[in-house]
Amino acid sequence: MTHSRLLYERLAEDLQEFIVAGNLRPGERLPSVRRLSQERRLSVSTVLQALRQLEERGLIEARPQSGYFVRQTSAPRAQPDARVTPDSPVLVDVSQRVMRVLQTSRKTGVAPLAFALPAPELLPLAALQRLYGGVVRRHPRLLESGPFIQLDNAALVRQLVLRAMAWEKPPAANEFVITNSCTEALALCVRAVTRPGDTVAVESPAYYLMLQLLETAGLKALEIPTDPRTGLSIEALDLATRDGKVAACLLVPNASNPLGNIMPDEHKRRFAKLSAERGLAVIEDDIFGDLHFGNERPRPIKAFDKTDNVMLCSSFSKCLSPALGMGFVATGRYRQQVALQKAITSGATSAVTQQVLAEYLESGAYDRHMRTLRRDYERQVNAMRTAVAKYFPAATRMTEPQGGLVLWVELPAELDAGALYDQAIAAGLAYVPGELFSASGMYRNCLRLNCGNPHTPAIDDAVRRLGALMARHLRAP
Amino acid sequence: MTHSRLLYERLAEDLQEFIVAGNLRPGERLPSVRRLSQERRLSVSTVLQALRQLEERGLIEARPQSGYFVRQTSAPRAQPDARVTPDSPVLVDVSQRVMRVLQTSRKTGVAPLAFALPAPELLPLAALQRLYGGVVRRHPRLLESGPFIQLDNAALVRQLVLRAMAWEKPPAANEFVITNSCTEALALCVRAVTRPGDTVAVESPAYYLMLQLLETAGLKALEIPTDPRTGLSIEALDLATRDGKVAACLLVPNASNPLGNIMPDEHKRRFAKLSAERGLAVIEDDIFGDLHFGNERPRPIKAFDKTDNVMLCSSFSKCLSPALGMGFVATGRYRQQVALQKAITSGATSAVTQQVLAEYLESGAYDRHMRTLRRDYERQVNAMRTAVAKYFPAATRMTEPQGGLVLWVELPAELDAGALYDQAIAAGLAYVPGELFSASGMYRNCLRLNCGNPHTPAIDDAVRRLGALMARHLRAP
Repeated sequence: MTHSRLLYERLAEDLQEFIVAGNLRPGERLPSVRRLSQERRLSVSTVLQALRQLEERGLIEARPQSGYFVRQTSAPRAQPDARVTPDSPVLVDVSQRVMRVLQTSRKTGVAPLAFALPAPELLPLAALQRLYGGVVRRHPRLLESGPFIQLDNAALVRQLVLRAMAWEKPPAANEFVITNSCTEALALCVRAVTRPGDTVAVESPAYYLMLQLLETAGLKALEIPTDPRTGLSIEALDLATRDGKVAACLLVPNASNPLGNIMPDEHKRRFAKLSAERGLAVIEDDIFGDLHFGNERPRPIKAFDKTDNVMLCSSFSKCLSPALGMGFVATGRYRQQVALQKAITSGATSAVTQQVLAEYLESGAYDRHMRTLRRDYERQVNAMRTAVAKYFPAATRMTEPQGGLVLWVELPAELDAGALYDQAIAAGLAYVPGELFSASGMYRNCLRLNCGNPHTPAIDDAVRRLGALMARHLRAP
Repeated sequence: MTHSRLLYERLAEDLQEFIVAGNLRPGERLPSVRRLSQERRLSVSTVLQALRQLEERGLIEARPQSGYFVRQTSAPRAQPDARVTPDSPVLVDVSQRVMRVLQTSRKTGVAPLAFALPAPELLPLAALQRLYGGVVRRHPRLLESGPFIQLDNAALVRQLVLRAMAWEKPPAANEFVITNSCTEALALCVRAVTRPGDTVAVESPAYYLMLQLLETAGLKALEIPTDPRTGLSIEALDLATRDGKVAACLLVPNASNPLGNIMPDEHKRRFAKLSAERGLAVIEDDIFGDLHFGNERPRPIKAFDKTDNVMLCSSFSKCLSPALGMGFVATGRYRQQVALQKAITSGATSAVTQQVLAEYLESGAYDRHMRTLRRDYERQVNAMRTAVAKYFPAATRMTEPQGGLVLWVELPAELDAGALYDQAIAAGLAYVPGELFSASGMYRNCLRLNCGNPHTPAIDDAVRRLGALMARHLRAP
């Protein structure tokens, strides 16, 4: 790189960062060429080169006799569109890349924008800890609870059943299997209803952990187009399952991960009907269901399931603490297969923690806590959206989450969030690259941001620097 | 069945039970035909028919002019011999049968002879429960512990490392992954080092859970002859692994399940060397290692592992409580693969329970408890051996466990413990049929008994009735 090239590129980057940071709004005039030349001690031709580059990137426009202006971008913060997916199922290979993100993003000093984890200060950790003390005093024989299958705590199961009483067809107590996490619940269900080589339908984009589960179980993923407003396309699933070659469907209908949308009830009803007709095993991740931003708790697909072919998985890791180690699955007709998988792939579930959770739910403390936490997450997601709108390149799109704690960002098409990940980490910035949400390499220009933390100036600054990093890599068209 | 047949069979059964219960010793004379006829109000010919049946079963012999005598059986309580195993690996299909035993044997009123579970009164449950209270008071921020991978508690890992300090090559702290159970540890390791279709070498007989793991992972089992005194045959493993087609070896070298023997150190050393040379991934279940009956804690194969190809799995479910939900694996060179499996198949491990366990180990309470528990189990295993010797048919063999809490019983060859299981359950008696310890249908005339309970009169009576049931089914040769 020649010296003069370095000079104009630096200027272009600085100007771009200045613009995407919101210091100049669309329609506002940039400083004059002469002023830039004087202030930066650069030749006029170098300044002109820098401005031409920004013009090529679509950030600014020259107006004859008037100078350079920040471009009006049309609907700059639109939602991403649903994408066309491959017709055929593919083997998955994302695990190594997910592990890399997991390892690098957790280093000290890296902004917590990657994994969907809440800030500890939002969680009722002290109350839960105190409850352990009370529980072991009041129930001195918890650790006697016996043989290694079916350690399910009856009081906890009762609470889970109570919460489903309003559904058209609430699950029975004996459908429930208590697990160590929602992750474990999903893994047990996948193994319960598939054999290596089977095809499993997933949303597109799909939660990367689901893809990892398919990968390690030797299963193929069939990506189904998914709309950021209404969720998985029932029509596409209908087409894809006509030949009977899809063994199961894995999805997150409530506050989808990563899209954040809630599938409308009418779609859930159609989905339940279709999957019943096709005899399709459905594995539904409802972990964000209690984190809706609207007034009503959205129902899961399981609420409309008349033939017991839906397995509902969830946990309290996003609402109470990831360190609890407690999740569950309502197994529908697959009780025996799921219980077998539980017995042979983990066996135990902490008897003490089950009782703690049962009493926390029973007392009403959970519902009180959730009223606050939902508002916290909604505020944080909105603050993140504002920050992305302010700091990211003009053509960036993003979702309008209806719940949960993540935001899905679609960068201009020429950006590759996976390729830029190392640079981001080097700058103390993390995210989950979009390509990890696809088995077929889609979503390279997308990324997912965690909104689990209060939007502090430090978080805002991290988003600003991330936006600037992306802007710097916008190539000329 | 005709009336007279019923009569003589009843008499035969009563006499047999009387003999196997030890009321008549080898060489002693049975009551005379005339006396039996009078006392039972049966015709002489009916009595003679009954006696002829017992003679055919090898229980008694007629001596001319003297009457009927209980037969001298040669070395009636010998250990079983190692058996020849199939040359080729086979797909496994035992899970449904294991689940059936699991479900039926846990019903109220069934004697707890099936699963290897300790009686609650032998465990320090009250002390552990109290510790929960103290731990949550002293460590108010446990539930903050973070992101969903690597929830490993440093104090707990330190205790595990300390316990291995005397080994030739103790594992490093960063080798450990804390799990929800030994079962989970084994499952993670199997998935970490195999692909569906791979062949895995196992002991013969093998712990049925290992076979279930292979079954659900789509792996083939290659059964390696295993001596009830010295364990898995290193020579056979040598032969079996020459072609490089064995992906891993799963075994329980310390107080093997079900044989109860401890592999001699010299064999462990040779095993470690051979597996290193062959690049064989070894998954070692050491759950009974702390339950040795001898004075010294036997070392695991991992203690002799110079190339980090051994994964050591264990938990505290046989020593502290199956309801704790806490195990671990020292991963050797497979750390990354095992951690990946942990992240995607369960994620969480209870932060509170990890600290409880760490402090229990730290305080020395565990070692004090184990000194008592080892003696308890040894006493119970010996009492079980005495009971089996007393009540089971003459040709029955059984193991001489050097640790653990199970006894392996080899019935006369014509008995099928799997086929008799339903009758046993109907009589309130349970065991694990021997066929569940083989992928190729071996060990039909064997069964495993749990010695985890104090040998009460109720347990003794259950063993007596089980022995009588087996004796009743001895067919004529």
